[in-house]
Amino acid sequence: MTTHLSNFLDRPSADGIWTGLRLLREDGNVQATPGAIVVRQGLVEWLGDAAGVPASFIALPRHDARGALVTPGLVDCHTHLVYGGQRANEFAMRLAGASYEEVARAGGGIVSSVRATREASEDELFESAAARLRNLLAEGVCAIEIKSGYGLSLEHERKQLRVARRLAEHFGVTVRTTFLGAHALPPEYAGRSDDYIDLVCGQMLPALHAEGLVDAVDVFCERIAFSLEQTERVFRASQALGIPVKLHAEQLSDMGGAQLAARYGALSCDHIEHLSADGIAAMKAAGSVAVLLPGAYYTLRDTHLPPIEALRAAGVPMAVSTDHNPGTSPALSLLLMVNMACTLFRLTVPEALAGVTAHAARALGLQDTHGRIDVGLPANFVLWNVQEPAELAYWFGQRPVRCVVRQGRIAEGAA
Amino acid sequence: MTTHLSNFLDRPSADGIWTGLRLLREDGNVQATPGAIVVRQGLVEWLGDAAGVPASFIALPRHDARGALVTPGLVDCHTHLVYGGQRANEFAMRLAGASYEEVARAGGGIVSSVRATREASEDELFESAAARLRNLLAEGVCAIEIKSGYGLSLEHERKQLRVARRLAEHFGVTVRTTFLGAHALPPEYAGRSDDYIDLVCGQMLPALHAEGLVDAVDVFCERIAFSLEQTERVFRASQALGIPVKLHAEQLSDMGGAQLAARYGALSCDHIEHLSADGIAAMKAAGSVAVLLPGAYYTLRDTHLPPIEALRAAGVPMAVSTDHNPGTSPALSLLLMVNMACTLFRLTVPEALAGVTAHAARALGLQDTHGRIDVGLPANFVLWNVQEPAELAYWFGQRPVRCVVRQGRIAEGAA
Ligand SMILES: [Zn+2]
Ligand SMILES: [Zn+2]
Repeated sequence: MTTHLSNFLDRPSADGIWTGLRLLREDGNVQATPGAIVVRQGLVEWLGDAAGVPASFIALPRHDARGALVTPGLVDCHTHLVYGGQRANEFAMRLAGASYEEVARAGGGIVSSVRATREASEDELFESAAARLRNLLAEGVCAIEIKSGYGLSLEHERKQLRVARRLAEHFGVTVRTTFLGAHALPPEYAGRSDDYIDLVCGQMLPALHAEGLVDAVDVFCERIAFSLEQTERVFRASQALGIPVKLHAEQLSDMGGAQLAARYGALSCDHIEHLSADGIAAMKAAGSVAVLLPGAYYTLRDTHLPPIEALRAAGVPMAVSTDHNPGTSPALSLLLMVNMACTLFRLTVPEALAGVTAHAARALGLQDTHGRIDVGLPANFVLWNVQEPAELAYWFGQRPVRCVVRQGRIAEGAA
Repeated sequence: MTTHLSNFLDRPSADGIWTGLRLLREDGNVQATPGAIVVRQGLVEWLGDAAGVPASFIALPRHDARGALVTPGLVDCHTHLVYGGQRANEFAMRLAGASYEEVARAGGGIVSSVRATREASEDELFESAAARLRNLLAEGVCAIEIKSGYGLSLEHERKQLRVARRLAEHFGVTVRTTFLGAHALPPEYAGRSDDYIDLVCGQMLPALHAEGLVDAVDVFCERIAFSLEQTERVFRASQALGIPVKLHAEQLSDMGGAQLAARYGALSCDHIEHLSADGIAAMKAAGSVAVLLPGAYYTLRDTHLPPIEALRAAGVPMAVSTDHNPGTSPALSLLLMVNMACTLFRLTVPEALAGVTAHAARALGLQDTHGRIDVGLPANFVLWNVQEPAELAYWFGQRPVRCVVRQGRIAEGAA
């Protein structure tokens, strides 16, 4: 992919009165009366019926949305967006019948992403991630989580997280960085996973935290990755530094990771195809969000559905995300994940839309500022070329964005 | 969706020397040496190594593709693109737990699309289909099949097919019209399906053929639609008029439709999840293309895979298409179908790419003019922002088009 860099600060200000809006309400229905939003200095200053815009705003510029459906800016709450290389060749080899060993011999698997990430310069990582990010921004993403986890050493994890911060600045998008040093065991620690966890807890995390690069900490808790005990060591180190935690939990088996994460007040448990009833109860009590990742489920041709009905019954908030990563979810569309969450996981349309707005914001601890449109918040909203909210989930492979207001600027398209 | 109409004849001519091309070969690999294409008066006049461009072309304008991967223009060989309304509400209702009866009572199902299509004016149908078509054109579709089948009367089938012809003219895209009068039984013929087939064969088909609106004829042969005998009546009427046939075959059960279609030299058999070994042999002998529709398979959460290995072993050419329709495949991306054909059906990457180019063209009888880049053919090709062909299948939800040359014009983007 080639990068087309926008210069965010050159984008026009969204300040003014936005009229002719059909606002999506939190219950999934559209506000009955035409709505208006007043933006000043990049913040939502007023919100309500178009008929009621206070006279004091009358001199502001006008943006006529001509009846466009309006939603909050989207939030992609689980991504591994920054990495070196890509694995299209591995994808092709597997389809052509190559065995796991042949792929490994050709340099495939997560190890290849670790190698390519380590070999890439910070600028190269920035360029490749920027090209991917452009796809997500173009469809209305205004906040995104970016995990480390392909560097697996202080130097290279730092490089990934610094790129995440640069992306935020360059594109005017809210980025939450998540340190995922405990993603996989680096080759140089083969057979010494406890030593690697020592490094993660004792050196990498404190150093990256001191540099302001860590908004949250995540662990891949799975038989093929790190154990419950190792996960807890990372959580304890995070808690000591006051950093919130999240968990890649119960993707391939029920490890009891959700209960552990809940004990540490985790923002979210993610994947959770094999989540148990106890895990659900623990998440509910802790206020953790269930992050559903249908792109990985689809790519892996998984058949074990996450326990959607039980989560719904328990009232655990459900978010939906791309899980963008080069191995199991090379997904570049959050709207497609909305369709997949409905089609594959049977979320209702309002659930899927809340999953990429309010609940996704909560999974990042951003519920006070993102995932909804409200007075005093940064102006992040999307105007869509559709009649009904359900169309955002129904069509797939579409590109229905008319205009994105991101961080108070008209970042994509025009009213 | 709002329509953004392009004025095709205002688009710049693609005439000139296109250099810096990395041409995708038919075997799925990229030409080793930099390629060039000379376009004159909208046709490919020369094609080969950039180093060998004849001196006689030296005065032509240059388009530097800077190493872009180049493929033939894509061909979407099975769509129901023209219809009234859409069924997002039905999609949402089902997810919210509505029963089949409740959906029907709320006016859902194919009957609702028939009603909305009949109620819509030709201009309204044009506008809504144009908005959908824009999505497909933006990712490189240069030829598309559009079926009727939601009018189910002479007047309304004519309206659908006229819209298909207008789309071709307006967007400079090659459109093959397929008369699918035998798609479903119209409500006014309930219990009288043979009478409806009389109407299809005796009145609708001859009249629409006389008006030049029918490039091919299709039937939905299935227990819930039309029988083998009824299908054969339609095929005989088509044959008598010299019109090629295709078939919606063996989607839900093995009806033996493929063997019947093969006897009539069908261009293609489509869906074919339940295709038998005899059906495959018949298709091979007849030269029919197997059209795979992973979007419908995905939307219906089907689990019965089409017999890919047997088709491959028999050497039956496989095409891949969106099957765009408002009920079972509201898909608006042919590239996403390439990913789904690989991920869900396990096509190899070269198979999937041939499936949306050369083999898709063959499924429409367009193999002499579309689906490949060659001297004397209309200039239809796509420049992509990817390094490797496999990336076209690997990423999903992407929009990697840099430039589309369609019918000799720079229709999207720029070199
Ligand atoms: Zn992940
Ligand atoms: Zn169809």
